[in-house]
Amino acid sequence: MNITPESMALKIEHTILKPDADYASVDRIVDEAIKYKFAAVCVNPCFVSRVATKLRGSSVGITTVVGFPLGATFSSVKAFEAEKAVEVGATEIDMVINTGAVKSHDYDRVIDDIRIVRAAVPGVCLTVILETGLLENDEIIMCCKLAVEAGADFVKASSGFVSTGAKASHIALMRKAVGTKKGVKASGGIRNLKDAIEMLEAGANRLGCSASINIVDELSR
Amino acid sequence: MNITPESMALKIEHTILKPDADYASVDRIVDEAIKYKFAAVCVNPCFVSRVATKLRGSSVGITTVVGFPLGATFSSVKAFEAEKAVEVGATEIDMVINTGAVKSHDYDRVIDDIRIVRAAVPGVCLTVILETGLLENDEIIMCCKLAVEAGADFVKASSGFVSTGAKASHIALMRKAVGTKKGVKASGGIRNLKDAIEMLEAGANRLGCSASINIVDELSR
Repeated sequence: MNITPESMALKIEHTILKPDADYASVDRIVDEAIKYKFAAVCVNPCFVSRVATKLRGSSVGITTVVGFPLGATFSSVKAFEAEKAVEVGATEIDMVINTGAVKSHDYDRVIDDIRIVRAAVPGVCLTVILETGLLENDEIIMCCKLAVEAGADFVKASSGFVSTGAKASHIALMRKAVGTKKGVKASGGIRNLKDAIEMLEAGANRLGCSASINIVDELSR
Repeated sequence: MNITPESMALKIEHTILKPDADYASVDRIVDEAIKYKFAAVCVNPCFVSRVATKLRGSSVGITTVVGFPLGATFSSVKAFEAEKAVEVGATEIDMVINTGAVKSHDYDRVIDDIRIVRAAVPGVCLTVILETGLLENDEIIMCCKLAVEAGADFVKASSGFVSTGAKASHIALMRKAVGTKKGVKASGGIRNLKDAIEMLEAGANRLGCSASINIVDELSR
């Protein structure tokens, strides 16, 4: 794969979602994102407003997560969380699908859940996170189709908190399911350049990682 | 410790929080809770309304979780989630503390976060979950004091999803910090009667577990 450090950086969301991240760690991620020109930072909702202040005037986006990482709350809560996040500066919303409804084959509820969030933040890039490590292949394909039908812009493999992270085979499946007009994000366990390239080759066009600097530096050497 | 199977059952919240739990698994937990007379079931918000319908007329309570398991969302979202849950039948709310604010020593934010949820569901039993595996002892003590000051009824060790579950040493510390007028819940990794007794002896008066039947049955033998 022919890729420069600069174009790799533009595919990366520099991510800090661990619950014990303090303000200083979040600030450091933001500084690094500015320096390395990452596509975006990905932080928990409670940090969005802080990050937005620091990123004013920069081209780095702000991704946050909704119903994260279990996806098992009310649709109205996910929608309110998304709305609130955009209000204080989020530019992209990653919502977690209702995995329990998927497992119960209650697809009406799955798609309604996504539609309600979609309607709450029209025009904002919306990603639907699938907990791929807990899903069968046919469930992954079905979730991708429902996400597209509900108006999502991206599907994403793994929250990084439950079960395993993204696998290349899942990414390939998701890319095939959503076609070329929608995005596919990989996250969870992308620790080095080899992992990153593997995900991109499998069909991802965005990577969520915390080892971002390591990945870009490896490519620069 | 002198305890009967019946009084043990009344200390247990029969818990199913894994994101891939389907409707049938949740229904089974409810049936088991009725049969064994557990104090409550603990389910994710999206199942509260389903569980409330099944539990109508029963003495089993319904606990749900808010801002779970990271605790890193907006206070207003936690409050809305709690309100919504009570509206559809939750009798107890377990909210996760803002661990990032704790780690940043931003205690005003920590207590405000709890107060906002407290105000949203007045009169409802409110538990504050501390991710004890990520906290130092002095932080655990401080969080307990803030929870009490903000009007919480219980403090709880561990979400069961991040880091380690409850440890007896943490429970003892929390009991000492909140005194005898507030409750202490232990959860995460309570797999058998020995674990349960250890937590109760350390000072817990409520246990969140999924091995609930095993624990009561061990005691019956």
